[in-house]
Amino acid sequence: MSKKLTKREVDYSKWYNELVVRADLAENSAVRGCMIIKPYGFAIWEKMKEELDKKFKATGHQNAYFPLFVPKSLFEVEEKNAEGFAKECAVVTHYRLKNNPDEAGKLMVDPTAKLEEELVVRPTSEAIIWNTYKNWIQSYRDLPILINQWANVVRWEMRTRLFLRTAEFLWQEGHTAHATKQEALDETLLINNLYADFVEKFMAIPVIKGVKTASERFAGAEDTHCIEALMQDGKALQAGTSHFLGQNFAKAFDVKYATAEGGLEHVWATSWGVSTRLMGALIMTHSDDNGLVLPPNLAPIQVVIVPIYKGSEQLEEISVVANKIKADLEAVGISVKFDNRDNIKPGFKFNDYELKGVPLRIAIGPKDLEKQQVELARRDTLEKSFVPQTALIEMIPALLEEIQASLYNKAFSFRDEHITAVNSYDEFKTVLKEKGGFISAHWDGTEASEEAIKKETKATIRCIPYDTKQEEGSCVYSGAPSTQRVLFAKAY
Amino acid sequence: MSKKLTKREVDYSKWYNELVVRADLAENSAVRGCMIIKPYGFAIWEKMKEELDKKFKATGHQNAYFPLFVPKSLFEVEEKNAEGFAKECAVVTHYRLKNNPDEAGKLMVDPTAKLEEELVVRPTSEAIIWNTYKNWIQSYRDLPILINQWANVVRWEMRTRLFLRTAEFLWQEGHTAHATKQEALDETLLINNLYADFVEKFMAIPVIKGVKTASERFAGAEDTHCIEALMQDGKALQAGTSHFLGQNFAKAFDVKYATAEGGLEHVWATSWGVSTRLMGALIMTHSDDNGLVLPPNLAPIQVVIVPIYKGSEQLEEISVVANKIKADLEAVGISVKFDNRDNIKPGFKFNDYELKGVPLRIAIGPKDLEKQQVELARRDTLEKSFVPQTALIEMIPALLEEIQASLYNKAFSFRDEHITAVNSYDEFKTVLKEKGGFISAHWDGTEASEEAIKKETKATIRCIPYDTKQEEGSCVYSGAPSTQRVLFAKAY
Repeated sequence: MSKKLTKREVDYSKWYNELVVRADLAENSAVRGCMIIKPYGFAIWEKMKEELDKKFKATGHQNAYFPLFVPKSLFEVEEKNAEGFAKECAVVTHYRLKNNPDEAGKLMVDPTAKLEEELVVRPTSEAIIWNTYKNWIQSYRDLPILINQWANVVRWEMRTRLFLRTAEFLWQEGHTAHATKQEALDETLLINNLYADFVEKFMAIPVIKGVKTASERFAGAEDTHCIEALMQDGKALQAGTSHFLGQNFAKAFDVKYATAEGGLEHVWATSWGVSTRLMGALIMTHSDDNGLVLPPNLAPIQVVIVPIYKGSEQLEEISVVANKIKADLEAVGISVKFDNRDNIKPGFKFNDYELKGVPLRIAIGPKDLEKQQVELARRDTLEKSFVPQTALIEMIPALLEEIQASLYNKAFSFRDEHITAVNSYDEFKTVLKEKGGFISAHWDGTEASEEAIKKETKATIRCIPYDTKQEEGSCVYSGAPSTQRVLFAKAY
Repeated sequence: MSKKLTKREVDYSKWYNELVVRADLAENSAVRGCMIIKPYGFAIWEKMKEELDKKFKATGHQNAYFPLFVPKSLFEVEEKNAEGFAKECAVVTHYRLKNNPDEAGKLMVDPTAKLEEELVVRPTSEAIIWNTYKNWIQSYRDLPILINQWANVVRWEMRTRLFLRTAEFLWQEGHTAHATKQEALDETLLINNLYADFVEKFMAIPVIKGVKTASERFAGAEDTHCIEALMQDGKALQAGTSHFLGQNFAKAFDVKYATAEGGLEHVWATSWGVSTRLMGALIMTHSDDNGLVLPPNLAPIQVVIVPIYKGSEQLEEISVVANKIKADLEAVGISVKFDNRDNIKPGFKFNDYELKGVPLRIAIGPKDLEKQQVELARRDTLEKSFVPQTALIEMIPALLEEIQASLYNKAFSFRDEHITAVNSYDEFKTVLKEKGGFISAHWDGTEASEEAIKKETKATIRCIPYDTKQEEGSCVYSGAPSTQRVLFAKAY
C-alpha cells in the first residue's frame, strides 16, 4: 500500500503537490515550468471543456483558430497590453537547427536561419486577432463578432506550480467585437455570469462575482470582471476573467465600421478566458487528506466496483453481479469501472480510488452475494452502508446528485464563514493572519492605499463585488472616506 | 452577387485557394505560413475531431497533453528523428522582451534573457513523450500505454498552402508503448484501418491503404503505414500515417520494462497522426466550380431554408412554415438554418450556400405556400424538385444519407478510373502526363530507381498497397526483376 499524503494542516502546499502527482492528474516535465497533463487529469479537463463549449455555443459564440505566433511588431501595437506581457514572452528567433560541427550527433541553432522579425509565442491573442478583425469588419452588418478559441498559451513565469501557474497552459479565450459600448458591456457581464454559473453548478465551487480595481486589471482592458473562489487554506483564487476592452484594441489596430446611419466608428471589444488553472481550484476546494474529491459532474469514473474474493470461482460469481450493475448504471448515463484486476489487493484499490476521488465505490464480497447486497461508500463523507443490489439503479443517480449538491453546500458554508467584515487595519491584519479568507473592508479607492496594504500584508483587493452595498465608511488603511466595502485576500 | 470562382480546368490551384478563402474556411495570417481557421472551417474540423476522438476512445486510447516545447538536448536523442525535422524547427531562444531604448513604444528581445538551452517548438512529440514514458514504464503491468494528444505543431515549411502545408497546423498524435513487437504491429495496423474507416465512411473519401517505402518513411520509424487519397486533379494526398517505431525510441531514451518472467526488455512503440490537412483532402475530393461540396456528416449546416418574398407580411407567412420545418428536422438531429436576413437577396444567398457546400437548400415562396410545397435543391447534383411540405420529414434524412453515399461512390469511381497499370517507363510517363492519378507499376525495390523516377517525373511511390498481388514482373525503370506492383503518383 502506498504512502499516505502529507496532511493539509501540516503543509497545505506539499499536500497539493503530492495529490496532483499521486492522483495521476499532472506532473512536471523536462521543460522548465511546463506540465504534462496525464490522462486522468485530462479527462477531467475535457469534461470542463465540453460543458463550457456547449454554453459558449448556446450563447451564440463560434470557435475558430488563430496562429500560435505573434510577430513582434503586432504584439507591440497596443502598448499597455504589450507592456503587461513583454516580461514573460517566449520568443522564437530562428527557424532551423543544423548539425553541430564540433559535436557528432548534436544539433545547434543555425545562425543563418535567423528570422527577420522575432515571433512571440502568444501569451494571449488580442494582438493577432484584432489585426485579423480589421479585415473582417467593414460595416455594422459584420457585427457582432463572437469568437472563442481553445488554445495553448505561454507566459514565462518564474515560479510555477502544477495547474496554478505554468509557463504553458491550456485555456479558452473569447474575443468579441461590437457596434456599441452597451453591447460590449453586456457581453462582458454575460460571460462573467456564464463562468460563475459553470463553476458553481458544474464544478460545485462557489464564487464571488465582481470587478477588479485598476491596478489588477488585464493589461489593455478598461474593466476586468472576475469570479473569485476561496480555497481551503483561506487563500483566494481567480477562477475566470471577462474584460471590457473599450475601444483600445480597435483604436490601436484601426478597426472601424460604417454605421447604419453612414458614419464611421471604432468598434467596441471584450475578451475573456478560463484555463487549466480551474483544475487547481477544483482540487483545493473539495479534496481532503485522503486525496482528490470530485463532484460527480467532473468524475471520469463516477462509480467503481471492487470485487472482494478468494479464487477465480468467487470472482466469476461476483463478476456476474458486477457486470449487471455496471450495465444497468451505464444505461442511464453513469460511468462505471469494474476493477477486476487480479494482481492488486482490494485494500490497495480502495486507497487508489479514494486518492483519485471516485464519488462512489461499490464493494462486493461472497457475503454480499449471499445477502444480495453491496457495500456502498461515498467518497465525500467516507460513509459506508449496505444496500440491496436491486436498490442501486434507483439510488445511485439520486446519490450522485446529492453528492454534487452537498459538495457545493459544504464549500459554500466554508466560504461564507470566511468572509469577515473588519473596520480597522489592526482587525484586518489579525483576521488575515489568524483566520484568512476574504476580508470585507472599506477602501478609499486610491492605488496608494491598495499598494501599501499589499506591501505590508500580501493581501490584494480580489474584487469589488457586484452586490457590495453603497454605505458610508472610512478606509481601513488611510481613514479617508469610502462609499463601499471591497474584498481583500491573499491569493494564488 | 459576388464574382465566380476560377474554374478548376482553368487553374486548379487558384480554384482551391479562392474556394478556401471565399467559403470562409481559412485565410492567411500576418505570420508567414500560419493560417487562421475561420469559424465555418473550424466547425467542419470540430466534426472530424469529435468523430475521431470517439473512435480512439472506443479502441482504448486516452487523451493527455504534453509540452509545446522540446529542449534541444531531448530533441536530438533519437538521431534519425532529429535529423528529419531539424531543418524545419522554430526555436525559442529568449524568454523576455524589453523596451527598445532607441525607439519609444517599441520592444526588443532582452539579450539578458537568453535561455541556457534552446527550446524547439514541437514538430512532433516523440522526443518529449518518450522522455516521459521512461518514468511511467517499469513493469509489463504498465503496458500498453495508449495515449493520444490533440495539439498544434510547427514545421517551418518554405512553401505553404492553406490546410495542405502550413507552418503551424492542428493535428492529433497517438503515441503508444507495448510489451511485444506483435502488439505494436497490431496497433499500427489497427490505427491505419481506423483512419481508413473514418476517412471513407465519415468524409466520403476513398483511400488506398498501404505501406511506405524506406525513403518515404517517418523519420525514426521502422515502417510507415498510410492511407492515400486521390484529388480531382489527379494528384495523390497522404491523408494519414501510422508508424511502427520498433524499439528505436525505447532504445534512444532507454525505456525498459520488467517482463512477467523477470527479464528486462526494451519497449515497442507506435505513433500516428492526422491533421488539418484532411480539410484540404475534403475540399479537393468533392467540390466543384460553384464551390465547396460537403458530405452531410461534416456539414455544419445540413439544410438551409431561404424565403422568397416581397414585404414583411409574406415573410411572416413563410416564416411560420419555415420554422415548423426547421423544428421538425432539428428534432431528428438535422442541423438547419433559416436565413431570414432581410438585407440580402435570395440569389445572393443561393450562391453563398452553394459556395459553402450546404448539402440541401429549401426555398419557399408565395406560390409554394399556396401549393403547400417547397423547392428542394441538392448541392452535389444541383438537381431541384418540388416537394410537398409534409413529405420533408421523411425525405430529408434519407436524402442526406443518399448524398453521403453518392459522394463516396462518385469519388470512388473517379479514383478507380485513375489507377492505371503500366508496363513500361514510356507508358508510365505518358499516363502521368496525360491522365494523372495512381500508376500501378513494377518496381525493383531499390532506392536508386525510386529516386531516379522521382527526379525525372516528380512522381513518388505513394505506397505498397496492402492488397498488392505477388506476381513476377520487371521494374518499369531498371528492368530488374520485381515481385509486386506499387502505386506511383504526383502528390500534395
